[in-house]
Amino acid sequence: MKQVSIGLLGCGNVGSAFVSLLEQRRTTISARTGVELRVTRAAVRSLNKDRGLKLPAGVFTDDAASVVEDPDVDIIVELIGGVDEPLELLRRAVELRKPVVTGNKALLASHGAELFAAADAAGVDFLFEAAVAGGIPLMRPLKASLAGEPVRRVMGIINGTTNYILTRMTDAGIDYRTALGEAQELGYAEADPTADVEGYDAGAKAAIIASIVFGSVVQSTDVYHEGISNITAEDISVADRMGFAVKAIAVIEAFGDNIRNHPEIAIRVHPALVVKSHPLAAVRDSFNAVFIEGEAVGDLMFYGRGAGGRPTASAVLGDVVDAATNMVHGTPGRIGALAPARIRPLDALKSAFYMSLAVTDRPGVLAQVADVFGRHGVSIQSMEQQGLGDRARLIFITHDSVEAAVKATMAELRHLDAVVDVHSAIRVIGGEG
Amino acid sequence: MKQVSIGLLGCGNVGSAFVSLLEQRRTTISARTGVELRVTRAAVRSLNKDRGLKLPAGVFTDDAASVVEDPDVDIIVELIGGVDEPLELLRRAVELRKPVVTGNKALLASHGAELFAAADAAGVDFLFEAAVAGGIPLMRPLKASLAGEPVRRVMGIINGTTNYILTRMTDAGIDYRTALGEAQELGYAEADPTADVEGYDAGAKAAIIASIVFGSVVQSTDVYHEGISNITAEDISVADRMGFAVKAIAVIEAFGDNIRNHPEIAIRVHPALVVKSHPLAAVRDSFNAVFIEGEAVGDLMFYGRGAGGRPTASAVLGDVVDAATNMVHGTPGRIGALAPARIRPLDALKSAFYMSLAVTDRPGVLAQVADVFGRHGVSIQSMEQQGLGDRARLIFITHDSVEAAVKATMAELRHLDAVVDVHSAIRVIGGEG
Repeated sequence: MKQVSIGLLGCGNVGSAFVSLLEQRRTTISARTGVELRVTRAAVRSLNKDRGLKLPAGVFTDDAASVVEDPDVDIIVELIGGVDEPLELLRRAVELRKPVVTGNKALLASHGAELFAAADAAGVDFLFEAAVAGGIPLMRPLKASLAGEPVRRVMGIINGTTNYILTRMTDAGIDYRTALGEAQELGYAEADPTADVEGYDAGAKAAIIASIVFGSVVQSTDVYHEGISNITAEDISVADRMGFAVKAIAVIEAFGDNIRNHPEIAIRVHPALVVKSHPLAAVRDSFNAVFIEGEAVGDLMFYGRGAGGRPTASAVLGDVVDAATNMVHGTPGRIGALAPARIRPLDALKSAFYMSLAVTDRPGVLAQVADVFGRHGVSIQSMEQQGLGDRARLIFITHDSVEAAVKATMAELRHLDAVVDVHSAIRVIGGEG
Repeated sequence: MKQVSIGLLGCGNVGSAFVSLLEQRRTTISARTGVELRVTRAAVRSLNKDRGLKLPAGVFTDDAASVVEDPDVDIIVELIGGVDEPLELLRRAVELRKPVVTGNKALLASHGAELFAAADAAGVDFLFEAAVAGGIPLMRPLKASLAGEPVRRVMGIINGTTNYILTRMTDAGIDYRTALGEAQELGYAEADPTADVEGYDAGAKAAIIASIVFGSVVQSTDVYHEGISNITAEDISVADRMGFAVKAIAVIEAFGDNIRNHPEIAIRVHPALVVKSHPLAAVRDSFNAVFIEGEAVGDLMFYGRGAGGRPTASAVLGDVVDAATNMVHGTPGRIGALAPARIRPLDALKSAFYMSLAVTDRPGVLAQVADVFGRHGVSIQSMEQQGLGDRARLIFITHDSVEAAVKATMAELRHLDAVVDVHSAIRVIGGEG
């Protein structure tokens, strides 16, 4: 039996769950792999906090660097969060040729390429299943089962908070503020929910997925973000009646004839109307799912818990088992060099849109509005009018149209006398044949 | 660059797709793994058939055994199908210490344990991702990401033919025969559809999943089967109105306090009413999905193409890449010894049931019927009556009840004068909060 020592950086929610899971499964893992795993050092902010863990007192330290430097520590598990501190620690771990397992999406979405390249050069594993979709096995299938599979598009519901809020708005007919309040009470949303509801969290995860799927250096800053705070209960009920679920979606697309070879990439996070027959439309509550359109394998979807201590710890443990067995056998995986990314700007993309306009219902309004769409080359798939008089509303679904043209259409519509407001403009996924 | 030679047994739909995929991806795979893969021998039934493949003429032979024996062949890929012939060939391959990749569910569901043990003893990989759910990465996550994760239940839509038929019945309101005819015309169902519609195909796949998840020797013969041919368009429309989708489901459950340690297992394939909020209810057309309830990781679902040449070939190729890199590095995986299975018989299980009874609507009928349920300890969750007079129908949904008691209830109901027929009895999944 080979002994492998783990140095844990950070012992909060996920870290504590990881220590407990490892306790429970050590025997099973040893029987399957021939490797015995132990957490021998754990760096924490406060040495006084009781974490209820069965670790010898001497394991804990408040000096994270000493854990990395400890010659008896074989593998580093980073669950601190943030960017600067873990960046220094993991650079050093790789320099010391220690395999790294991390759940830190912010770090990877800003400095992933550097760390991956350093790990490849040092010949050590750098694994991050937990950083992208919590407990869902996603990185391993992408790297193993789908290695060499050209992928045209990846769509993901990769933020549980926004999916919970939108599910509650749909089920209970409540507005965004009320649903957010519920999510905060349940601990699904932070007191400051910006990172979740404005799409920054999903954007970081999407950048990591794009980097691995397309072998390119994609960073958080490359992602177009649009939040869900403007979605109304009315949008959701109209969409529902038209056969769509409203979801916050990350969309990563590759363009060009040869998508094998570092293609041009578009990457964005925004609310979308997803046609109900699409599997992503059925992803409810705080669950996550990643939908992959592969060339040979066809459509795949991976669904599960994208957050939470135990699901995330389960992903961390899977990576630790891999890193340990690879270390013992001298067979680390390689991420491979990432090429500079070529990002296609949003304005050049095509999307179908749902649009809701508040108008004054008088003769000729529809003709005026339709004329604006037409002049910008935005063609209309369906239209309906709701209400009468000053409270009339026009609902449009467009065909796939150039984003810049849709933006120009909306700007011009706002200047029409009869248009009180362009109330909503939400992208539509899967609405056409 | 290491050269690895593949001996292909069988070159039909999947085999040909595999050869083409490998051609397309050889360079990418070499760049990522340092291994160059080539099909150097291919055993076929007819040497005269043109498969449109770019393989040198000398590669083909009609002598499968000679491919296995060829000392220049490193890895055996078996896509012949059937049981007796591949069993002999793969026994010999393992004896010669050649890694095996197979897509043969019938073989694994009858002789898997023997072959796995032989492969482990010989220290070679024995991989079968393609045998269970076509292109969906399932075995690799089960063996890697979820290693050591106790699983309470697995539910799968793992037969595309029946899922297509039930989807068509639901969408178009057509009856079973018509939908089957459509599936046959599209090539989704065989001229003799028995293996699909009676659940034998799904049963074999479920047996393989159960073997791996629970480390037990589960075989096709352990699976309880019920087909979909008795499902009516009316059942589907009533279920739809009540909030359920009708699906053909494989259910694998573990019982006991310690499900880590070769638990008692129940395994069955049957139609079921699945509550629409469950992700399996949204799996449409010929798609497959496997839903896993893990202890720490929570609910996971893997969705994709369960059949078809290219998706299945994609799974075969993933396994071949693994087998080749493991062979080069001397690090084959181990399946581990399987314990004898303890199978819990159907009669001892508990299920909720949807039941539709044709009755003569006269005073006291409902009391009589309810009395029969009550005496057998089958408690009713909801009831509704449709129609009047001689054409009345009673629809029940029961709480979870012992299967044997439900069977006895139905037998007694059939003897009541007022009961014209016990029309349908279909299990319900996820109906209770």
